[in-house]
Amino acid sequence: MEKTIVIYDSRPSLKDPLFIECLPGIGNVGKTAGDFIADSLNAERFATIYSEHFPPQVLLDDDNIVELANNQLWYVKDVGGRDIIFLRGDCQGSTQEGQFELCVEILNIVMGYGISGIITLGGYGTGQMVDVPRIFGAVTDLKIKKEYKGYGVEFPPGDPAAGIIGASGVFVGLGKVHGIPSICIMGETSGYFVDHKSAMAMVGVLMKKLDVELDLTDLQDKSEKIDELTAKVKEIDGRNQDLGYIG
Amino acid sequence: MEKTIVIYDSRPSLKDPLFIECLPGIGNVGKTAGDFIADSLNAERFATIYSEHFPPQVLLDDDNIVELANNQLWYVKDVGGRDIIFLRGDCQGSTQEGQFELCVEILNIVMGYGISGIITLGGYGTGQMVDVPRIFGAVTDLKIKKEYKGYGVEFPPGDPAAGIIGASGVFVGLGKVHGIPSICIMGETSGYFVDHKSAMAMVGVLMKKLDVELDLTDLQDKSEKIDELTAKVKEIDGRNQDLGYIG
Amino acid sequence: MEKTIVIYDSRPSLKDPLFIECLPGIGNVGKTAGDFIADSLNAERFATIYSEHFPPQVLLDDDNIVELANNQLWYVKDVGGRDIIFLRGDCQGSTQEGQFELCVEILNIVMGYGISGIITLGGYGTGQMVDVPRIFGAVTDLKIKKEYKGYGVEFPPGDPAAGIIGASGVFVGLGKVHGIPSICIMGETSGYFVDHKSAMAMVGVLMKKLDVELDLTDLQDKSEKIDELTAKVKEIDGRNQDLGYIG
Amino acid sequence: MEKTIVIYDSRPSLKDPLFIECLPGIGNVGKTAGDFIADSLNAERFATIYSEHFPPQVLLDDDNIVELANNQLWYVKDVGGRDIIFLRGDCQGSTQEGQFELCVEILNIVMGYGISGIITLGGYGTGQMVDVPRIFGAVTDLKIKKEYKGYGVEFPPGDPAAGIIGASGVFVGLGKVHGIPSICIMGETSGYFVDHKSAMAMVGVLMKKLDVELDLTDLQDKSEKIDELTAKVKEIDGRNQDLGYIG
Repeated sequence: MEKTIVIYDSRPSLKDPLFIECLPGIGNVGKTAGDFIADSLNAERFATIYSEHFPPQVLLDDDNIVELANNQLWYVKDVGGRDIIFLRGDCQGSTQEGQFELCVEILNIVMGYGISGIITLGGYGTGQMVDVPRIFGAVTDLKIKKEYKGYGVEFPPGDPAAGIIGASGVFVGLGKVHGIPSICIMGETSGYFVDHKSAMAMVGVLMKKLDVELDLTDLQDKSEKIDELTAKVKEIDGRNQDLGYIG
Repeated sequence: MEKTIVIYDSRPSLKDPLFIECLPGIGNVGKTAGDFIADSLNAERFATIYSEHFPPQVLLDDDNIVELANNQLWYVKDVGGRDIIFLRGDCQGSTQEGQFELCVEILNIVMGYGISGIITLGGYGTGQMVDVPRIFGAVTDLKIKKEYKGYGVEFPPGDPAAGIIGASGVFVGLGKVHGIPSICIMGETSGYFVDHKSAMAMVGVLMKKLDVELDLTDLQDKSEKIDELTAKVKEIDGRNQDLGYIG
Repeated sequence: MEKTIVIYDSRPSLKDPLFIECLPGIGNVGKTAGDFIADSLNAERFATIYSEHFPPQVLLDDDNIVELANNQLWYVKDVGGRDIIFLRGDCQGSTQEGQFELCVEILNIVMGYGISGIITLGGYGTGQMVDVPRIFGAVTDLKIKKEYKGYGVEFPPGDPAAGIIGASGVFVGLGKVHGIPSICIMGETSGYFVDHKSAMAMVGVLMKKLDVELDLTDLQDKSEKIDELTAKVKEIDGRNQDLGYIG
Repeated sequence: MEKTIVIYDSRPSLKDPLFIECLPGIGNVGKTAGDFIADSLNAERFATIYSEHFPPQVLLDDDNIVELANNQLWYVKDVGGRDIIFLRGDCQGSTQEGQFELCVEILNIVMGYGISGIITLGGYGTGQMVDVPRIFGAVTDLKIKKEYKGYGVEFPPGDPAAGIIGASGVFVGLGKVHGIPSICIMGETSGYFVDHKSAMAMVGVLMKKLDVELDLTDLQDKSEKIDELTAKVKEIDGRNQDLGYIG
């Protein structure tokens, strides 16, 4: 039987698009940054992916209209001369096998659009409040590493030592298997809340890569609230900034 | 290999049937209401579905005749001019993937009968004794929402916030995917026992939708026992009505 | 890929064979009784079944020769004019789905031999020392129930109330689905050890069904050790015979 | 969909190669010994296997170049007149079913190269510091047992009583199913750390089998550190050498 159902809104004609994955993860840094860019660029959804590997669940909007758990593909054309496909959604696969299968199936779809590169967006959890979040990278080859160093991405040797788990890892790994230049960009984050500040730093890197200017006002406002939270936490306990998971 | 075995008793000829799911769930509100309506309308079983996704188990009747865990499809013709298919059974899929697969397979079967709408029956667990159970809804579109408001179904915005899990959620979600007007009807219930009172309220909504009158005497008797139980619980502790799971 | 590997020693020509399942289960009553009968009748193995659903494990014999976890089919011809296929082994499927799939696949194989009936052998766990183990039954139809009542099998209405889980349940359930007269025979047992006494009672029933006399000396000896154990337990604590799991 | 992806570096022409499995396991004895031999013999990788059954994860090297979790096949020609295929990697399948499926798929690949024998390398965990690690064996037939006795492998009857779990067990079990002479060689180890000493003893056996001399200096150095560790542990507590898991 058909385990994955893909419903197309349209079949856009795209030229060597860049594929950017921004699913939920640590501190939701990747999702926040990716959704912000997709929305700022007025990306359009062209496919919705339903799968047995997502939770058997619907979510409701404010009109009580249901939506079965899914991932979506969105596109935008001609960003600094380049087309982009975004992978967005509220969930990743529920099992290890399911995560792998979904990545293979989704990569098959976007490879059908001739993607020229993969960027996965994730978080690098520190368990500590972070003043100035750095952006780390893991790549498929030295050329792409050099390029992103130029955008301010840092590459502490062999870090993260535990590797990268989930869609952000698998897509880059499969990118290497298929010879597609790929990078996983990770925003440093405590991991304790949705980290708009780290996401803003990540958007900064991506604006350089994509050669666009975006209005960061909204992200800036939310980011400042993170600063306030960090300050409060430090006030309460300057030595022990380990909060436990608060959201 | 064949993971799902469907055995047909008959292949009824049905016209644009409504598909009503009434499998076990919170407080068994949906199962109780659905089974009551199916039995009252003298529905006939036409297919039994066995699957690796159900528990590897037989149940026994009073003659010690076994029955492998299954779901069944029942039909009734010309209820207020409309044909109906009921999905009934004693279990849902054992795993998340299994629940999704079963819903897809069963929906494929009933779509073969040209279903014109989906109603899934579930419970809305409050963890508190409920005096007058309300009936809540989640829908695929605003038109069906408006219709069911007319039958007394309530739609508190975005509620339940955690969405709807299991067959009641997935069928409505898949209904939206396939463009079939669908609603999940949830009867408010403590969730602590089989809630005939909430089921009776749900039957009230469905009698309006189906434009039939059913003899509610039996459901009324059982419902009054729920009232007695609620009164006793209140007597014991007027402030804390949280019982813990007792059945 | 091929998930199940079946290796044939021979392809015996059998006439309407009876299929007897004797895999491990509660108190290993069914395995002990079935293996005893198969060995007493000089049954021959004709197929070995390997599967991803068995543990990924080899066992060693005293020569350190390995054997991958498996189930086997054995046959014997002309037992009171009837051929028999036995399902034997040291394991059942590791997961719920695996148990179901294996039963479906194995049933497909033995249905290819035109089986005329199914007997599954199991245990009925009481958690209490049992003086005179009774033999209970669960059936696909009233005719087979009447036959086995004549062999001394008891049918307390609707018992076991929790149904029958695993191969002993699923084969009988699938037997009903396919219209094959089937019975699950359960030997009453504490469930705390391999229960040769309950197995001997079960062999008594099966000797009547198969119309054969077998030499029970060995089973009798082991059964008497169960009696000694029961006596000791009673001596230690006449009131509380609940031992906890000791084997 | 394609659950297993095999990427070939080359398609070597091999004559009746021996297949040696050296994946991670107890004390990493097998991995350490196998990797040492493959590297000493300048084996070349010819295939990389990616699968949904491995963790959905990439690891990073010191250049932050990613590598998706995988197993690899390496070959070397003409070792004492014999060709060899090594199975190497950093992980085994995540689930029981996955382990079995991977072994079947990988065996299918190497059987395509006409393998003439299988050697799986594992650890035999004692939970105690081991002064002079012995090498134990489990085999598919008495002939191979006799051969390896000549290399110093010991065969205490029926030991390990719990059998052998994972790739080291399944490959030998499948070897027997397919009539390929196979042995699992297990190095005695506490199991508490990567045991180079046990691995060196195992390499000693394999040098005899393969009729090669390898430079053991590096392994000897690491092995001596194990001796120092053992001595220290004994000093601290001569009676209780049970360390708990420290690495």
